[in-house]
Amino acid sequence: MNYGKKVWIFPDAELPPIGVNSIPGHESIIIVNPGKKDAHITITLFYADKEPVKEIQITVEGERVRCLRTNEEKDFGKHMAAFGEQYSIVLESDMPIVAQYGRAEPRAVAFYTTLGYNCD
Amino acid sequence: MNYGKKVWIFPDAELPPIGVNSIPGHESIIIVNPGKKDAHITITLFYADKEPVKEIQITVEGERVRCLRTNEEKDFGKHMAAFGEQYSIVLESDMPIVAQYGRAEPRAVAFYTTLGYNCD
Amino acid sequence: MNYGKKVWIFPDAELPPIGVNSIPGHESIIIVNPGKKDAHITITLFYADKEPVKEIQITVEGERVRCLRTNEEKDFGKHMAAFGEQYSIVLESDMPIVAQYGRAEPRAVAFYTTLGYNCD
Amino acid sequence: MNYGKKVWIFPDAELPPIGVNSIPGHESIIIVNPGKKDAHITITLFYADKEPVKEIQITVEGERVRCLRTNEEKDFGKHMAAFGEQYSIVLESDMPIVAQYGRAEPRAVAFYTTLGYNCD
Repeated sequence: MNYGKKVWIFPDAELPPIGVNSIPGHESIIIVNPGKKDAHITITLFYADKEPVKEIQITVEGERVRCLRTNEEKDFGKHMAAFGEQYSIVLESDMPIVAQYGRAEPRAVAFYTTLGYNCD
Repeated sequence: MNYGKKVWIFPDAELPPIGVNSIPGHESIIIVNPGKKDAHITITLFYADKEPVKEIQITVEGERVRCLRTNEEKDFGKHMAAFGEQYSIVLESDMPIVAQYGRAEPRAVAFYTTLGYNCD
Repeated sequence: MNYGKKVWIFPDAELPPIGVNSIPGHESIIIVNPGKKDAHITITLFYADKEPVKEIQITVEGERVRCLRTNEEKDFGKHMAAFGEQYSIVLESDMPIVAQYGRAEPRAVAFYTTLGYNCD
Repeated sequence: MNYGKKVWIFPDAELPPIGVNSIPGHESIIIVNPGKKDAHITITLFYADKEPVKEIQITVEGERVRCLRTNEEKDFGKHMAAFGEQYSIVLESDMPIVAQYGRAEPRAVAFYTTLGYNCD
């Protein structure tokens, strides 16, 4: 399978608190690589008031899915998300991938979100 | 109507527990076939640490909607989802369709998700 | 403004119960018409086990937004949604519009949804 | 990075009440500008029963993300959202951006939403 795109952008990322529920608060980026070859992905993080981080490298093997947790050092190294900080996530891959963002919020609230319709 | 696309990819699938709410925890893939002819669809499942499953076949009749439950044998046969396992779902159809994924989580949490903006 | 598309498809529609919360359970289709001219829209409803409904007509005035409630006769006439019935909604407009679906569920559950990445 | 689109449209906006949770009810538009140059953005608001507002101007600096709160005067000036009023948001930028809408609802409900599949 050769499906997907090489660039994925998530404007709204922000680490929630862990909380006390059976599902701890967290953020995930889930990436599926439907092709046979490994996908080498550079992650860039943009912030509201400081320079972007451009040095995170990850790999998703061919025909596999990988779930990155933004608060785990094994996934984001020294650039783990900090609680309550607004940031954005950009993925640039050398192979086509499909990527999704999810947030699990332990505080009492009903959330929903959508990217808008876009055109030029 | 000849609307839709033949390939649909959902990176983030994971079966929640059934729980004790009036809405039991579940995952669904909802597929509408707006055309007159039946759509024959092959489902591929990708996993984090094992080979993909490529042998699931379903049909959505012309001008009908069908809701697949990932934990029901009538929809996914012997490849029903296992609680807590990360996987991805790919649909390949011979006719244009439109597909949506939904998760109903019985545990206390506020969830939201989005695919990112994508380009090459 | 001439932005938008003429066809919008929502695979997963299902009327929730009204419940007892301050926000009653409901479904909405929200349509914005960014252009100057009125948009005349035909709504088609697809079902799991019966013939589609193709006769609903609505208008969204130029430079206005309109929120349709699927359980209100003023919006869906005699084809109001029935509690718990799976169906799909197709909008066909003579002018470009942008449309969004929302569901407010009064029962205890955490929901999320997304259309998949699509291609041919 | 030169990724993104210049126009973003969100059909369904409506300010929730503030409520009493640790996360107050609110709406946000989150905009990331992945390019080096500042993005100058005009915001248009469409309503159900009155003329659109077309005069809001904001800037998102190059390589930064900005979160607009619809009920804060520093972001929307005199056109802050009013509780319970249906409206739509259009962004027109002079540089490519990526934008997302989020609503945090303090009342008891499980919400989800999606834009539909669109085509002509």
